[in-house]
Amino acid sequence: MAPRQIGRRSFLVNASDVAAMGGRPRFCVVSLEVPGRYPADDLWALQAGIVAAARRYDADVVGGNLSRSHTLSVCIALLADAPTRVVTRGGARAGDHVYVTGTLGDAALGLRMLRTRGANRSAWAVRRFREPTPRLRAGRFLVESGIVSAMIDISDGLAQDLGHVCTESGVGAVIHAERLPRSAAYRALLGARHPLALHGGEDYELLCTVAERHVERLERNREKLGCRITRVGVITADRGIRLVDAAGNAVTLPVAGYDHFR
Amino acid sequence: MAPRQIGRRSFLVNASDVAAMGGRPRFCVVSLEVPGRYPADDLWALQAGIVAAARRYDADVVGGNLSRSHTLSVCIALLADAPTRVVTRGGARAGDHVYVTGTLGDAALGLRMLRTRGANRSAWAVRRFREPTPRLRAGRFLVESGIVSAMIDISDGLAQDLGHVCTESGVGAVIHAERLPRSAAYRALLGARHPLALHGGEDYELLCTVAERHVERLERNREKLGCRITRVGVITADRGIRLVDAAGNAVTLPVAGYDHFR
Repeated sequence: MAPRQIGRRSFLVNASDVAAMGGRPRFCVVSLEVPGRYPADDLWALQAGIVAAARRYDADVVGGNLSRSHTLSVCIALLADAPTRVVTRGGARAGDHVYVTGTLGDAALGLRMLRTRGANRSAWAVRRFREPTPRLRAGRFLVESGIVSAMIDISDGLAQDLGHVCTESGVGAVIHAERLPRSAAYRALLGARHPLALHGGEDYELLCTVAERHVERLERNREKLGCRITRVGVITADRGIRLVDAAGNAVTLPVAGYDHFR
Repeated sequence: MAPRQIGRRSFLVNASDVAAMGGRPRFCVVSLEVPGRYPADDLWALQAGIVAAARRYDADVVGGNLSRSHTLSVCIALLADAPTRVVTRGGARAGDHVYVTGTLGDAALGLRMLRTRGANRSAWAVRRFREPTPRLRAGRFLVESGIVSAMIDISDGLAQDLGHVCTESGVGAVIHAERLPRSAAYRALLGARHPLALHGGEDYELLCTVAERHVERLERNREKLGCRITRVGVITADRGIRLVDAAGNAVTLPVAGYDHFR
């Protein structure tokens, strides 16, 4: 990735965490660790990428630090205005419906393409990896309206992040594999049933749970989200996540978060 | 340094920046990049060092991030309550007196001892490096009282950080070498005239400038600072920093900040 893309993406993935809380980005401080021979032009481009992304979401870069290291490292602390209500990963209840925004698996597909350097690239999928879209408008509406009972952004893949919600909420879930929203590019390249939409990370879409009594209100206000939202399953009292295919066959998924030290 | 010491020091050097603005530390977020094989016990100790240092200065660790990297990296963003007045590096005026808190050069001496692993160690100097004392009480009083016209914390050495103040303020300075405050340990090991007090970094003391009309009030309120403070020179309209020795001989110091990419 080009330095400007690295800077932009660093801000966007931070903003996604704010979206999952229904917050409004305001200020950020940026700490850059840079190798001694890193070109000055690249450093300015990286910084410009952060600043431009911040401005696009009404935030300002107000300070930071610069130091030398062996490895390039971009560390952003993003401050946001809190919503009037707090929604965590721990509020899902049996019977709640499971929704996801946008489409899943594109970013993982794009990353795979960047790594293999193959000719058959999808510009859409690559862009979904390089430039995730923090769902700030959707997150804010879903929290402030009282519609969602739990929310998280999908950074580690739907299965893993749903696992976080289930663990924190003390519940389980049933997910319908064929309902997972897949982009046209994804379906063209991988087919409609490929499991990357379930396990591929880096999507930075929102995963939320909605009680039955709020479903009608969510459906009525779809246009306020600024993105598509798809019902993919339901929360259950039984622990564990079960994946059901179109034929009705079910498999139980292992519930585990991303292990940074794996 | 032990992991707990690394954590503690990471917080303290951040708090020193807050002290230089007269702020009051409140909240921090911590981003840790850790090698895959870093022992879990060390990671907990590092975290405990940060938390203990934060508590000692009435701040809380409220969040953060953990990721894997080749190099251990501790990145802290510290939020503080601002004072009612803003003092920057740019407010020094010709005729202002130059003051520094504490003693200078101990930390650089301590670091030198740790590096050479010699037997003739000063526990005081080593501790001054490992555990700097952010001058929060002094910084707050000096800002809120309206006594100081410019302030900075000394992280790169007196000469360099005074250079920052002079550059930002468009002034110069005369410093009296024999007036630089040196600890008993420093004098015993290096002698009263050694230049490490001028150039050695990592002290995290405060350097401030005080207009003539506020000097008497500063002298009268010394006990409110919680540390010693020493008048070491004067701000001049002529650019450049001149160092005067006990015999009255003057040399001009090069004005340059620490270059992270040198």
